[in-house]
Order: sequence, then structure tokens, then C-alpha cells
Amino acid sequence: MKNFKVGVLGATGAVGQKFIRLLQNHPWFSVKAAGASKRSAGKKYKEAAHWIEAADIPEAIAEMTVRACNPKDFKDVDFVFSGLDSSAAGEIERKFAEAGIPVISNAKNYRMDEHVPLLIPEVNPAHASLIKSQTFTDDGSGWIVTNPNCVCVPLATSLAPIYEAFGIEAVAVTSLQSISGAGYPGVSSMDMIGNVVPFIGGEEDKIVEEPLKMLGKLNNQHVKPADFKVQAAAMRVPTIAGHLLSVSVQPQAKLDDIEEAVRVFETRKNPVEKLNLPSSPDKLFKLYKNPHHPQPRLHAERENGMQIGIGRLRSGTLFDINYTVLVHNTMRGAAGGAILNAELLVREGYLE
Amino acid sequence: MKNFKVGVLGATGAVGQKFIRLLQNHPWFSVKAAGASKRSAGKKYKEAAHWIEAADIPEAIAEMTVRACNPKDFKDVDFVFSGLDSSAAGEIERKFAEAGIPVISNAKNYRMDEHVPLLIPEVNPAHASLIKSQTFTDDGSGWIVTNPNCVCVPLATSLAPIYEAFGIEAVAVTSLQSISGAGYPGVSSMDMIGNVVPFIGGEEDKIVEEPLKMLGKLNNQHVKPADFKVQAAAMRVPTIAGHLLSVSVQPQAKLDDIEEAVRVFETRKNPVEKLNLPSSPDKLFKLYKNPHHPQPRLHAERENGMQIGIGRLRSGTLFDINYTVLVHNTMRGAAGGAILNAELLVREGYLE
Amino acid sequence: MKNFKVGVLGATGAVGQKFIRLLQNHPWFSVKAAGASKRSAGKKYKEAAHWIEAADIPEAIAEMTVRACNPKDFKDVDFVFSGLDSSAAGEIERKFAEAGIPVISNAKNYRMDEHVPLLIPEVNPAHASLIKSQTFTDDGSGWIVTNPNCVCVPLATSLAPIYEAFGIEAVAVTSLQSISGAGYPGVSSMDMIGNVVPFIGGEEDKIVEEPLKMLGKLNNQHVKPADFKVQAAAMRVPTIAGHLLSVSVQPQAKLDDIEEAVRVFETRKNPVEKLNLPSSPDKLFKLYKNPHHPQPRLHAERENGMQIGIGRLRSGTLFDINYTVLVHNTMRGAAGGAILNAELLVREGYLE
Amino acid sequence: MKNFKVGVLGATGAVGQKFIRLLQNHPWFSVKAAGASKRSAGKKYKEAAHWIEAADIPEAIAEMTVRACNPKDFKDVDFVFSGLDSSAAGEIERKFAEAGIPVISNAKNYRMDEHVPLLIPEVNPAHASLIKSQTFTDDGSGWIVTNPNCVCVPLATSLAPIYEAFGIEAVAVTSLQSISGAGYPGVSSMDMIGNVVPFIGGEEDKIVEEPLKMLGKLNNQHVKPADFKVQAAAMRVPTIAGHLLSVSVQPQAKLDDIEEAVRVFETRKNPVEKLNLPSSPDKLFKLYKNPHHPQPRLHAERENGMQIGIGRLRSGTLFDINYTVLVHNTMRGAAGGAILNAELLVREGYLE
Repeated sequence: MKNFKVGVLGATGAVGQKFIRLLQNHPWFSVKAAGASKRSAGKKYKEAAHWIEAADIPEAIAEMTVRACNPKDFKDVDFVFSGLDSSAAGEIERKFAEAGIPVISNAKNYRMDEHVPLLIPEVNPAHASLIKSQTFTDDGSGWIVTNPNCVCVPLATSLAPIYEAFGIEAVAVTSLQSISGAGYPGVSSMDMIGNVVPFIGGEEDKIVEEPLKMLGKLNNQHVKPADFKVQAAAMRVPTIAGHLLSVSVQPQAKLDDIEEAVRVFETRKNPVEKLNLPSSPDKLFKLYKNPHHPQPRLHAERENGMQIGIGRLRSGTLFDINYTVLVHNTMRGAAGGAILNAELLVREGYLE
Repeated sequence: MKNFKVGVLGATGAVGQKFIRLLQNHPWFSVKAAGASKRSAGKKYKEAAHWIEAADIPEAIAEMTVRACNPKDFKDVDFVFSGLDSSAAGEIERKFAEAGIPVISNAKNYRMDEHVPLLIPEVNPAHASLIKSQTFTDDGSGWIVTNPNCVCVPLATSLAPIYEAFGIEAVAVTSLQSISGAGYPGVSSMDMIGNVVPFIGGEEDKIVEEPLKMLGKLNNQHVKPADFKVQAAAMRVPTIAGHLLSVSVQPQAKLDDIEEAVRVFETRKNPVEKLNLPSSPDKLFKLYKNPHHPQPRLHAERENGMQIGIGRLRSGTLFDINYTVLVHNTMRGAAGGAILNAELLVREGYLE
Repeated sequence: MKNFKVGVLGATGAVGQKFIRLLQNHPWFSVKAAGASKRSAGKKYKEAAHWIEAADIPEAIAEMTVRACNPKDFKDVDFVFSGLDSSAAGEIERKFAEAGIPVISNAKNYRMDEHVPLLIPEVNPAHASLIKSQTFTDDGSGWIVTNPNCVCVPLATSLAPIYEAFGIEAVAVTSLQSISGAGYPGVSSMDMIGNVVPFIGGEEDKIVEEPLKMLGKLNNQHVKPADFKVQAAAMRVPTIAGHLLSVSVQPQAKLDDIEEAVRVFETRKNPVEKLNLPSSPDKLFKLYKNPHHPQPRLHAERENGMQIGIGRLRSGTLFDINYTVLVHNTMRGAAGGAILNAELLVREGYLE
Repeated sequence: MKNFKVGVLGATGAVGQKFIRLLQNHPWFSVKAAGASKRSAGKKYKEAAHWIEAADIPEAIAEMTVRACNPKDFKDVDFVFSGLDSSAAGEIERKFAEAGIPVISNAKNYRMDEHVPLLIPEVNPAHASLIKSQTFTDDGSGWIVTNPNCVCVPLATSLAPIYEAFGIEAVAVTSLQSISGAGYPGVSSMDMIGNVVPFIGGEEDKIVEEPLKMLGKLNNQHVKPADFKVQAAAMRVPTIAGHLLSVSVQPQAKLDDIEEAVRVFETRKNPVEKLNLPSSPDKLFKLYKNPHHPQPRLHAERENGMQIGIGRLRSGTLFDINYTVLVHNTMRGAAGGAILNAELLVREGYLE
């Protein structure tokens, strides 16, 4: 396997730090460049970043000089991961793509662009082919792929088997989101100790629309979104890592028994299993039988934070399928998800 | 106004302590007797109780000798409040009623009994007349009245105006419940620091059925439950006091605009307003316009914990009415609610 | 009693908000002006402030137009309270004093100025006379009085009786400080959920020097600091309000028994008791006998947050007197302390 | 290396669970027997234990039948680890020793027994020879070794280099202890959310005496305790894992500069380094230069929770050496420490 040289945009922020830590011993990817704002550019990484990861800064990165996010300064990399803030990502990512540098982005800006894959390898790997419809460069060398909002990852991933097996009419979801989802410094401790904040600006709109694109059907380099309704309430709770969702689903087909849904989760074939992607979890779904599980503090880090935990799968009075689902929001839900996307794109030949 | 002598059953527990503190300067009720388990009986209250309230034990209570929960030892009181655990409440409350001592109970045991009012003064005051159908004593002197589960209080109270104005087809609710709802010691700190527990045993069944009884129609001393479905998920979050609910409601009537729902909350007539009950909040509902509000830590204690806070009243993709609602679970949702019930029963002549 | 018109500088910050709330129903003082940064000046208070108090903004203040902190815009007030950040307080407070407007400040800038009283009414009320040595104005109409750092309040107040009775040789203190001490947004929730931060910049220096000034002897309008050493460690813990200190004191005199220290706390005469200051607690010290008390969450708000709680008063192996002490850091330790100072200055004739 | 068959006493408790998880892939030790109370004996481990570790129960253990803690049922093991509660440990551990089964105990009961090593390999490895003075069996086959209280581990370990280099006159320590130190369910969440409990029963006595034994001089199979005074305050704070101590030390020798102390920590020779014990950290001490570090949440798990983190090493006004020290209380401070002791005892030939 070729070793790819990668850059990280937004490298000093919370998502950028997670990219750097997850890539530290990656078998395929090596971080060769760290990009950040002009304020940080020119400084050593260890001086520019307010490091918040538990592990130390990887030594090679610590001494690296941070670059400004200009494509011309990233000619030595094969592609970039973007952990940029959405306020900057729109313009910078476009410029990188136009310069022929592929962008694997965690930012929200291009997620709903009809030419940009919104990708979870285990959900909609075929959507990667939207890349071919992108026109940033004449030769197709520059393009953008995105991973979804951190709540949409467990939502779409857990809806996929249901959608495939039964169809879906309607979904209601209340999310209990951890503070790490807001970056650093992010949420004030004054808002979080012994408290819940029942609103996260902009979050619910993403929950309503991103899953529909991901579960949509690809036809002739165009995705037709899935056709069901999602009702969302997004709340911030004082957990460190791990978004927990309370999900209710009305399938199109009538279920005789909730065990039908259990079987669907237990038997669904992972569409990328044969690719042996390094960041893939051994088991995509873990179904917890103890109704008190999964819990963010105990279970979010299972399988290096890449597993989706499902609990309390049960029937109900109003919706036929109800469950809780847990994701590690900064691993599978952000940087780890983007890295998994890059791995898929390597295997599929988009990155060479 | 006559001053009533009252007893508190389960007086050393968390709910019992709240009764004692709330009754400390009550204009109508004076605590004359504290009942607890045999283990506590005979001890001074201050030695029997592991006091967890922020304020000191009222001096008169501190030195009081705790009694066993036998009706014959409570002949000096006009009625009792019960903060008993459900494991004991069934038998003890019945014995008190049979002995001619009215019981205003926070326990779950008799809530769904067809002869027992499940009462929120601002929701279903007329249900008090079920008392007359009780047969604990020949002369009607002994009876039981209950207040609902702490989550059902804000749910039923906030559904009432919607139900009255538009009818209800379906309700979906996810509750984020504070630790004080589990008493003391209650939930282990190992389960709660930086964590969420996505299950509370027995809670969801109550959420599904209690509101239907409360919103039911009284006819000929019988309550016909309301006829809609409730889907519930109950979770424990690390807040001290204040249950926050994410609620979605499908009304029977079509709303042209969410402002119709806003108006209903703003204009609904409080059915017990004229009774001037001492524990009534000046304003039953507070509608918060800041979408980040209400929050448990900041707003649960408004109006001495007796107000219902409603936020984010909004339309939606699936349900036409969506909102969050906050209640102080140990005040309005437990002891305070029971005291308000007693006040109503005084005004209505059931207690003399 | 004359009613004083007061201004609040730094009115939109966390300390300023506390001033506004505490002064809402003050018997002597009425807020007539709110000063803040140029960014806020000209806006309505309710728009300029990110309000974080649990109670609503007082209506009169909500609609008030915020002023810039220029003395010429505050000619309609008798004096000002300053909740300014130290980065601005140095210059602004001086200008107000020079303009003949007395400043009762919570900022650190002038605390150690030899002409400025560092005042706790129950500790060193006589130090108020340092005012007379100030030369901001020719006629003495403008001056500055400060209250100490929030940790130094319980430290100096609890050391005072010991110092008076036994003398002090040495003090060692580790403080566990709540997040509200850092204002809003203050400490990131990422640093505080399930965590301790073992350092608070600049805090330990204040703990080492402020108590010595307060316990110093006034002689000829000069304070000679007390002569003992303080060793300090200041840590941030995830509590909302209430700084808790672990204190060890070596008295100069030999104690036969720790009960001697207990008696000193129980019998010490409050030097301002006869002045009946409105914000004075009924009882300055509460000695808790339960070794698990006092606790920040339960006990910081006793007596409207103006009482000093002392627990675990005990002898030791190395220091003869050891105890924990709790203060409400934003009430007694900040805005409430400043208001109490103003009350003293009214009674003593400095404000007329 | 021989593979040892080990038993775990108190296997279903919090410490026992940690033993089981840490021993899961241990190169020398294999868990062959799990002992617990009579209530648990006879059940499968997975049914007897309320498992609180984040990782799943090791499969081999999950199906194991729990035994009662009788030595005759443990004849198939080479030695036992004891995570027993102190209420049971005294008698049970003695019986095991008398039956010729070595006991490596985390319980407090025998720590101060003059014949029992209170052992930290990096501090006092020679104390292991106290084993020879034990008389539980005629042939010396049964004996007890203990590891210290979880706070005493970082205290004694960090005092050791200072004591060896400069001597010690006096130590003052305030500990901020995590909730995992109290087991499960342990501390109520009602006591810990947004709160500090300033007292931990029995803890301070251990802090005062255990370090003196560990730093004591071994002479003729007798330990003469070190001769200095320790003043202690032990507090519970809402952290999950990681006890953080604020320590002040007065050395006997005069330090010219705090850098002398820094050098001592950086250059001290680890007395067991050459033994290559599997659970030894690569680096015993990590000195943090960022004054905000180490923090429990971020740094307690460094080197599998076996490293001692030291921060803010600084001079002071009263004590010449001041610092904070962090330990993972359930790893290095409990089960991990006991396992490390067993590894030392293997290398030293006490276990064969």
C-alpha cells in the first residue's frame, strides 16, 4: 500500500487535533502539513495549538511549522483533511479543490451540494461516485467529499438497516449531545455543570435533511433523497464525548414483532466489509441488552470510537421501532469518520 | 381559615423532607406528626433523617419523635401527606384511609385506581369528586388523593391547553430527568458524572398512561381516559433538580400557524385561579422566547418551583406542535404538587 | 435614611449582573445608571447583557440605556459600584474618583494601594479611614474603597478571630474554587466536567498578601500588614458557586485544646453588629458539626450568601488549628461584599 | 517465565473488577478463581457482578462460577489478590495466609502490621523481606503483602526522592479525591454534582501514618518509620478517576533553588528499573511544565494509569517545596499497584 502524504486544515482546532492524534500511527496516511489561520501560521504547532487531547502532541507534529491555508503551500501533500470551521471552510476548501488537491472534509459547507458525496462507508459507499460529477478542475484531480454532522452519523447509520428492510415513513429524534461537539472552549461550564441546554443552533436542520441525502438513491450521478420526515430536538448535556439519541421510527412495512428489527441489525451485511479499511470497527453495531446501556461515558470509545451502540430496541405505542443510539461524536462522528472516508476512497481508486 | 394539623408519612425520605420544608411556614397546614419505618420510629427526627435539604431542619421538627406509620398513632392530625416509597405505600395508605384519615399521596400505588383522583388543580380539579366514590370508610371520612409522577405533571399540564383547544392525536416525549427524582442516595455518582443513563425503570409506563387519566372526562363519578397515544423515552441526566422534556404533539385540528398554540398557552384560563391557593404560582406557564431557555439549573425554581416553563414552542416536520417543558420535579412534581392538591381540597370542602 | 442613587460600572458582566440583582430591592441604594464598554454603550441593558442570573432582569434595568464608563455621564449618581474587569478598572476607577464620584470596587487594581481600604466590615472596619488619605480630589469627594479577592474574604474573615485571640505564625491554604469565580463564559466546560484544574493564574499571590493587609494595624492613616506567612494553592473545581478552602493555621499562642478555637468563633464580637447593616448576616460564622459540611451546593447560599461557613475545626499533627471554610464567592466574595462595604461607609458618614 | 494461577478475592466489587480487567492479558498471571461473598458464591460471575468497567467482562471470567472466600476452595491457585472490603478482609486474608496461600492485598487491615510489607516497588522494595518475619505458617508458605491507600501512593512516591535527597521535616497535604475511590455505588450523585464533600471518613489517618512506614528504614526485619509530621485534609470532588493532591513539603536541608528539587525528580534512579516488571511505567514521574496540568480527566490514565504526574513544582512562602501530584486511584492506587507488587515478588523469588 502506498503511503499518502496528507495535510490537515484547521489543524489547531479541536477537530484538527483529533485528526492529528488519529493519524499518528495510521498505516496509510502521514501528516506532512498542518494548516491554520493566519494568526497561527508561521508558529510551531505546539505553540499555535491549545492542545486538549489527553495524549501528548505527536513529536513530529509538535515541532512542525503551521502553514496558512493556501493551496500553493500544500503542493507536497496528496490530499487534505479539513477540520475547518464553517466560517472559513467554504472558500478554502473550494480553493484547494480548484488547485487539484482533494479535500476530505468534516465541515458542513458542501454537505448538501448535489455534487458532493455526504459519505458514511457503511451506509452509502456508492455515493462516492458523485466525485466524478464535480467540476472544480478540468482533469478531475481536485474534489470534495464530506462526512455528515456528528448526530447524523449514528442516525443515518442506524436508520439504514431499517430503511433497507422495511422502508421508513417517519422518524422522531431527540439528541443528548456532549460538550466536545462544540469544540474548545465551546460551551461555558456555567451552562453545563448540573444543567441541560435545550437548543443547539443550526443542528436540527441538519438532522432533518442530511440523513435523507445519505439514504437517497444514486442514479446517473445524481442522488434522489429518501422520502420520509424527521422531527428533531437537539440538546446539550454535560457529557464529555458521545452523543446519545432517543430515536422513534415508523417503518413502512408492518412489523409483527420487534425481533424482526433486532434481526435486521444483527444480520445486515456491511457493504465495505471486504475492503478491510483500517479504521473500520470489527462490528459496526453493538446491540446492548442491558436497558441502562449504552452510556456515553462507558461505551462511546468502544472499537476506538468507531462502533455504533444501540440500546433499548423496542416496540412502542406510537412508533413501531424505538431505540437509543450512541456515537463517539469526535471519532466516528467527525475526524474518525473523515479518515474512514479517505480509506474508502483509497480502496475505490479515487486517491492514488 | 382553619389551621389544619397534618402528618407526614415517609417523613425521613427525600420527598418527606421536602414536605417538611415546604410546610414550614404554610399558612394553613402545620406538621404535627412525622411517620417513618419501624427502624426510625422512636428516634428524634434529626437523628432518624439523613437531612439533604439546603436549609436546616425546622427546629420544631428536629426534636419531634418519629412515629411508626400506624393510623392509631395519628389520631391527632386532620389528614396526612404521604411521601412513602411505593413498596410500603399500598398497605399503609389504605389503612389510614380505612381509619378515616384522608391521605394526600405522592406515591404511585393508587394513581390509576378508578376511584382515586389523579389530580393537578390547574388541569383536572373536578376529578376531586371521585373522592365520593371511595369506600374505605362507611362515612366517607377516609380517602386517598394522588398527584402524578413527576414527569407527568409538566406533560399533562402542558398538554391540557392543547387538548382543550385542538384535541390530540399523538404525543412523543423524551424526558431528561434530574437525579433528585431518584431520592437519596438514589443514583450513584459513578453513573452520573459526565454521563447519561438512558433508562429509568417503570417510568415510561407512567408517562404513557397517567396523562390520559388526567385529561379524561369525568362523568357520573367515573373518568373516561383521553384517547390518544403517547410514546415515551425516559433518561437520567446529571442535573440536580428540574425535569426537562422534549415534547412533540400532533393535534387533531389543523393549525394554520404555531402562534395559535402560543396564544392558547398565553390565554388559557386557570380553572382554580379564583381559589387563591397559597402554593399556586402567579403565572402557571412561563413561555421562554430565548431558545436556550428554560434550563433546569436556572429556571426550575421559578415561583418557588411551582411554575411550568415552556420553551421552543415551534412547528415541525412531523408533529405540528413541538416544545420543551421544564418542571421542578421535587416541588411542583412531588411534594409541592401534593400540598397544592390539599389546598384545593380544603377550598372545595373535602377537608374541614 | 436617605436613598442613594448609584451607578454600576461593568454592569453587563457577571459581577455587574450580581450587583444589579442584589440591589433590586435594596433599602438604601437604587441603581440609576449602568456603565459598560463602548461596545455596549447606547444599547438597552437587556440587549447588551448576556444575562446569566436565575431571576429575570429587573424590569427597570432591562430597559435602561447602557452608558460608557465616563464620569461625566454619571453626574446623577451619588457613587458607583465597580464590577469592572481589571484590564479596564485601573484607569476608569481613577477617573471616577478624580471626578469626585466615590468608587466601591470589586476590582483588584487598587486593593494593595496603601491609601485604599481593603475592607471587610466584620474584619477591619476602621481601615475605612484610609479614605481620608486619598488625594484624587482636593476636597476629598472622590475616593476608592475595595473589597478583597473572593478567596481572601473567607480566609481573612476566619483568620481574624484566631489572630485576635492567639496571634498567627503561619497559614497554609488550598482553595477549591467554583466556576462562577471566573465570570461568563469563564472556564470551558471541557476543562470542568469530571475534572479539576490545579492552577488559577494570579490567584495565589492575592491569597498570600491580601489577608496580611486586612489584618494589619491601622496607625496614623497607615496600615502595617500583619506579619505571618501564607502558603497557597488555588484550584478550580466543578462547583457553581461557593469557594471551599482547606486551611491550616499555626497560632502564636499554644492552644491547650481545639475547643479554645471553637469558643473564639462562637463568642467573637462582630465589630459592626450595632450598625445594623442591611446586608449583614444575622450570624457571621456558622460552625458546622457534621464533618461532611459545609458543602458548596448546599450551604453557600445561607443568609443570602453572606454567611461564612466553617467546618471540621480540629487540631492536627503539624498545625494546631485546621478547618474548612466556605464562602459564596459571587455574593459575600464579590458584589455582596462591596454592597456591605457601601452600607458601612454610609453608616460611618463617608457617603452622604 | 512461569505462568501463575491466581485467584481474586472480592472479585465482584469495584477493585475486584479492576483486578480482573488488568489481569486479562497479563503475561505472567492468569485468573483461575474468583471469590466473593456467600451471596454471590455459586453464581456465574456475569450474574454476580454489577460490572462497571467500560470494557466487557473477559469471556473466560464471565462464565466462571464465583466461589466463597474459603482457602480450601482456592487450592488450585498459586496466590490471591485481595480486593476485599476491610470489613471482611481481616479474617479472610489471615485464613488464606494460614492455609499457605500468599495474599497480595489492597485492603487496609494489615497495612500497619509490623510484619507486613506496605509496598510500592519504586519506593521501598526492600521492605518485601518483612515477609520472612511472618508466622502465619510454619514453612513460610503463606503470607500477606499490602499496597497503600490510594492517596498514600502518590504521596509516598513523590516524597521518596525528596526524602532521600534532602530529608523531610514536615508535610501538608490536601487531597481532591475522585468518586471511583469510594467503589460502586459509592458516593451518591446528590452529593457530587456541582459539589465537594470536605471529609472522607478514616482517610486522613492513613495519610498521616502510611507514608512514614513506607519511607521508614528496614533494619533486621523491622521497619523504623520515618520521623516527620504530615497534616492532611481529604476531600471528595466530582472527578471519575484520578486523585489530585496539593502537597507542601519542608525539607530538612535548605534548598538554594527549586530547581534542585526538579533535578531530584528527573534524575532519581528507579530502584526496580532493571527488573522490567510488566506493569512498570516507562517513566515513573512525569513533570508537567504547563501549570494547568496534570488534570485528572486528561492525565490520570497515562502509561496505563501507572505513572505519577507532578505539576507546579515550586518554592513557597512557608514550605520550600510545593507541588500537585496526580495518581490514577484505581490503577496505580489500587489494583494496578497490587499487581505491580506481585510482579516484584515474583522477580524477588517470593512467589514461585
